[in-house]
Amino acid sequence: MEHTFEPATYHNNFGSYDPILRISSGDLVRTSTADAFGNGREGDLVAKPGNPLTGPFFVEDAEPGDELVVLIEAIVPNRDHGYTMSGVAPHIVDGDFVNELPTRSKVRWAVDLSSGTATLNDELAEPTTLTVAFAPMLGCIGVAPPAGQAISTATSGRYGGNMDYRAVTAGVSISFPVFAPGALFFVGDGHAAQGDGEIVGTGIEISMDVSFRVELRKNVELRWPRMNTETHIIALGNARPVDQALQHATTELIRWLCTDYGYDTRGASHLLGQALEYDIGNVFDPAYTVAAKIAKNHLPG
Amino acid sequence: MEHTFEPATYHNNFGSYDPILRISSGDLVRTSTADAFGNGREGDLVAKPGNPLTGPFFVEDAEPGDELVVLIEAIVPNRDHGYTMSGVAPHIVDGDFVNELPTRSKVRWAVDLSSGTATLNDELAEPTTLTVAFAPMLGCIGVAPPAGQAISTATSGRYGGNMDYRAVTAGVSISFPVFAPGALFFVGDGHAAQGDGEIVGTGIEISMDVSFRVELRKNVELRWPRMNTETHIIALGNARPVDQALQHATTELIRWLCTDYGYDTRGASHLLGQALEYDIGNVFDPAYTVAAKIAKNHLPG
Amino acid sequence: MEHTFEPATYHNNFGSYDPILRISSGDLVRTSTADAFGNGREGDLVAKPGNPLTGPFFVEDAEPGDELVVLIEAIVPNRDHGYTMSGVAPHIVDGDFVNELPTRSKVRWAVDLSSGTATLNDELAEPTTLTVAFAPMLGCIGVAPPAGQAISTATSGRYGGNMDYRAVTAGVSISFPVFAPGALFFVGDGHAAQGDGEIVGTGIEISMDVSFRVELRKNVELRWPRMNTETHIIALGNARPVDQALQHATTELIRWLCTDYGYDTRGASHLLGQALEYDIGNVFDPAYTVAAKIAKNHLPG
Amino acid sequence: MEHTFEPATYHNNFGSYDPILRISSGDLVRTSTADAFGNGREGDLVAKPGNPLTGPFFVEDAEPGDELVVLIEAIVPNRDHGYTMSGVAPHIVDGDFVNELPTRSKVRWAVDLSSGTATLNDELAEPTTLTVAFAPMLGCIGVAPPAGQAISTATSGRYGGNMDYRAVTAGVSISFPVFAPGALFFVGDGHAAQGDGEIVGTGIEISMDVSFRVELRKNVELRWPRMNTETHIIALGNARPVDQALQHATTELIRWLCTDYGYDTRGASHLLGQALEYDIGNVFDPAYTVAAKIAKNHLPG
Repeated sequence: MEHTFEPATYHNNFGSYDPILRISSGDLVRTSTADAFGNGREGDLVAKPGNPLTGPFFVEDAEPGDELVVLIEAIVPNRDHGYTMSGVAPHIVDGDFVNELPTRSKVRWAVDLSSGTATLNDELAEPTTLTVAFAPMLGCIGVAPPAGQAISTATSGRYGGNMDYRAVTAGVSISFPVFAPGALFFVGDGHAAQGDGEIVGTGIEISMDVSFRVELRKNVELRWPRMNTETHIIALGNARPVDQALQHATTELIRWLCTDYGYDTRGASHLLGQALEYDIGNVFDPAYTVAAKIAKNHLPG
Repeated sequence: MEHTFEPATYHNNFGSYDPILRISSGDLVRTSTADAFGNGREGDLVAKPGNPLTGPFFVEDAEPGDELVVLIEAIVPNRDHGYTMSGVAPHIVDGDFVNELPTRSKVRWAVDLSSGTATLNDELAEPTTLTVAFAPMLGCIGVAPPAGQAISTATSGRYGGNMDYRAVTAGVSISFPVFAPGALFFVGDGHAAQGDGEIVGTGIEISMDVSFRVELRKNVELRWPRMNTETHIIALGNARPVDQALQHATTELIRWLCTDYGYDTRGASHLLGQALEYDIGNVFDPAYTVAAKIAKNHLPG
Repeated sequence: MEHTFEPATYHNNFGSYDPILRISSGDLVRTSTADAFGNGREGDLVAKPGNPLTGPFFVEDAEPGDELVVLIEAIVPNRDHGYTMSGVAPHIVDGDFVNELPTRSKVRWAVDLSSGTATLNDELAEPTTLTVAFAPMLGCIGVAPPAGQAISTATSGRYGGNMDYRAVTAGVSISFPVFAPGALFFVGDGHAAQGDGEIVGTGIEISMDVSFRVELRKNVELRWPRMNTETHIIALGNARPVDQALQHATTELIRWLCTDYGYDTRGASHLLGQALEYDIGNVFDPAYTVAAKIAKNHLPG
Repeated sequence: MEHTFEPATYHNNFGSYDPILRISSGDLVRTSTADAFGNGREGDLVAKPGNPLTGPFFVEDAEPGDELVVLIEAIVPNRDHGYTMSGVAPHIVDGDFVNELPTRSKVRWAVDLSSGTATLNDELAEPTTLTVAFAPMLGCIGVAPPAGQAISTATSGRYGGNMDYRAVTAGVSISFPVFAPGALFFVGDGHAAQGDGEIVGTGIEISMDVSFRVELRKNVELRWPRMNTETHIIALGNARPVDQALQHATTELIRWLCTDYGYDTRGASHLLGQALEYDIGNVFDPAYTVAAKIAKNHLPG
């Protein structure tokens, strides 16, 4: 079944809120997201600032202990401008360099939807102009966290959240452990582009048209979000410091290789030791995100 | 000038030792490295285990405050076998998963120099066979550290060291701040291949034929190693935890953009915010390594 | 006014739940807490395990931007037994020592209320007997977090939470920033005794009779919990890793010295540099707790 | 035997340098230390700045694998002034507070040897005057590190080093693993007083008269420095971040309880869980220091 749903309400926490739509495994949803500052496709304030979420989507039959797979079919910027913050965050640089950082203020980018580029003109900066190509992604994606918690979209955890991982693009699938009945899936915080780490605290924040398909897998023990791209399988870990996020991601990837790909931990050690790849999601938020990846051409069959 | 130099002695610290060869800016050196376990091209023990270094090479006129640029021309495995350790290190996984890790022991890989592949047969692992393609790199590269220090090849710092960064391959250049007269350059710890993080504590450890050219730049203030590849400029940071290595690398990249590429910190923030890339070197050693990169197609001119 | 209130319901999150009692600034409350496993004064299961909280107490007139001061008058174990976990958590020791840790299981301590001691007999341990004197404290104390969040009692933040700080005893006052109307104050997770760090994941978990008095201060900008003891002023920081918790606590203490005690940051630097004391709360939970303290005899007037 | 030895040379690294004096187990040494800035008892520059060390003292018969016990008999400030730095280091506070920190410059304290106090008058600070009582300690203490390394007195490790732990006072004993023949013991960096963490980067830096007695224990496997005070046994860990220093200290204390006090790891877990104490040495240097302590009244016999 296919749903086209334009949100009228938003949430700034991942939590067990009333569903905005009930869907079933196999369904396709076409919806949209406001930008991180709460501005919609017309540029007007439609939601409370701070990564407002579209959702939750209630997935029929989803129960704690299941895996919710989300295939992202499209993430398309839908207006002619975006915003970023102007300065690297102080905790990203050496302490003795903090005084050299610029003021953090909001700047506006012109977006050309036809060429797929965003351009900043900032007379306060040197150079004054910067153009980057679109690489559209979702900063926030996830499900309701465990035990009735409601957790700010400023951070992330086992349930996903504000991970700001550049690889969360159209064409990939991403899975979450289900903690609440119906899974309660959310999306938001679209970026036309973003550097690794989201070190200024934003990508190019823009409203998006988003399409995704959900698939439910019953009784799959995953502890952290997992992804499948054309080339890689990826496990995500969210925590501070980076070291701990990396531990979570690495451990989840080993578990996955052992349960689904025929490895034992010795075989997985050999493979990861010589072929593992790490990506860094955000290092800006309270919890950071690390991705542990293995190229599919290393995997059997 | 070109030098062909086969080492007879090795060092297991980066330090101000007597030079094995005196060279000048512009010179090419053809030499070789023993593997991390001290085994040379014949497979026999030629050096004390623990990342023995070939060096130091004394670069004429190099003084503290200069930049030593090293262009790596070749890193070529020169024997038919290599070694890895069999288990992911405990500090790389979640605490409650440590008990599931395999024993850490040394295993031998067969190396096929003609096809450029390494193959492990390990009856204790599942699967029992793994083949990976060569991606030869140097785990240890750097100069004598400041103030007469002598620091184990187990770790790294501003002077380089045991960074285990996969991008240290033939065809790149890597620069170090000079701390001692002559710079006192060292290489070692070659890997036929290695995953990000070097999470088993080794790449495929093998002896190498190594060629490099040095170039001296007087009075260049760099604080951390920097690299130039065909596609990127890269700043490296070495510290624990990952967060601090990342701070060093990011700060160095911003400084570099400001001194050499016409950016101010606001312009650099805009660029890095939307185009920065991070790589992870090793997360096994006392000091970890993070690389902050920017693609050259983003840079002016 | 004085209230005697025996809870019938509990919460396992700090959040904006319906108040169990409405109180006013100056009021005294006598209540009780179940232990971390959900067992009450009779030893029976009265609440869901996982640090069930007594509360929330709604404080009349409390608004976001205020300071809620809580004077703890009594924390008294009220039954003849408690529980601990038997093993140091794996993330507290070196990775290569994890395999030597004992199994983590729940063990029961006999509590002698008249002598104020707890005794463990554990035939699986060497030595088999351990007796410790009471040092009663509350592991969980805090208010509703910002923006409608509901956050597990497994962790902590600016709102307080599961800090497991040994100095939270009878006779001290502890303050929290108010984030929700009525502040919504909670207490729970009483320990008859506990080591620094709560490194086995528990103190001696026991139900408690608790008395406290609240006082409201309007429009006081505190960012983190603060304490007053007979001898010290204390600022608390909650985060991972320890380093970040320590940054929060130190910064809050400097701010406090500057706003309330006549220091500027240079004067505060001189004082803290030579007289600062740090304590560690828990290093077991997702967020760790560090206390930055200064003895009152160093303060003016 | 007793030695009175006034140093004429100093070292700024812990390393295997030529001994300044050969001593034997049981001997007492009376010597002195320059301050961290290289100034001696007359206030003149006698050594290179940056924690110059008095030493090394060669202990006859000390071999790798032994334990060197040092009983500190006296640490006495020997001149009428000391120095501190004026500002909390940026990495000790929140990133968004760095811009509020004062400039870091060197300030001079007047020292009254008869009353045992140090007084700062600083017209740039508010308040302008601060007096603190002496609590003399040594910031640097340790032996030559392993494998011929020479490591800056800016940092620390298994060999001790620049730990800046307030409890290193007269009356305690402190032990180090021996890594080099003769152990090669060093002392330096005396502080008339210091706050936990050494967060301005200095204690009250002053030259000292120091007396210590050494005792050699053959074949004792200790991995980190250990201390004995009148009231506690203490294990030290040195690393970054704090979390890792804490892991080292905790692990070492458990090992010690198991080898010397009749505990197994389950018994040690029970004890530490309810009675462990943590102290923080410095959090300023490249490696931080954490002390894990247990009161002797908890120990058998």
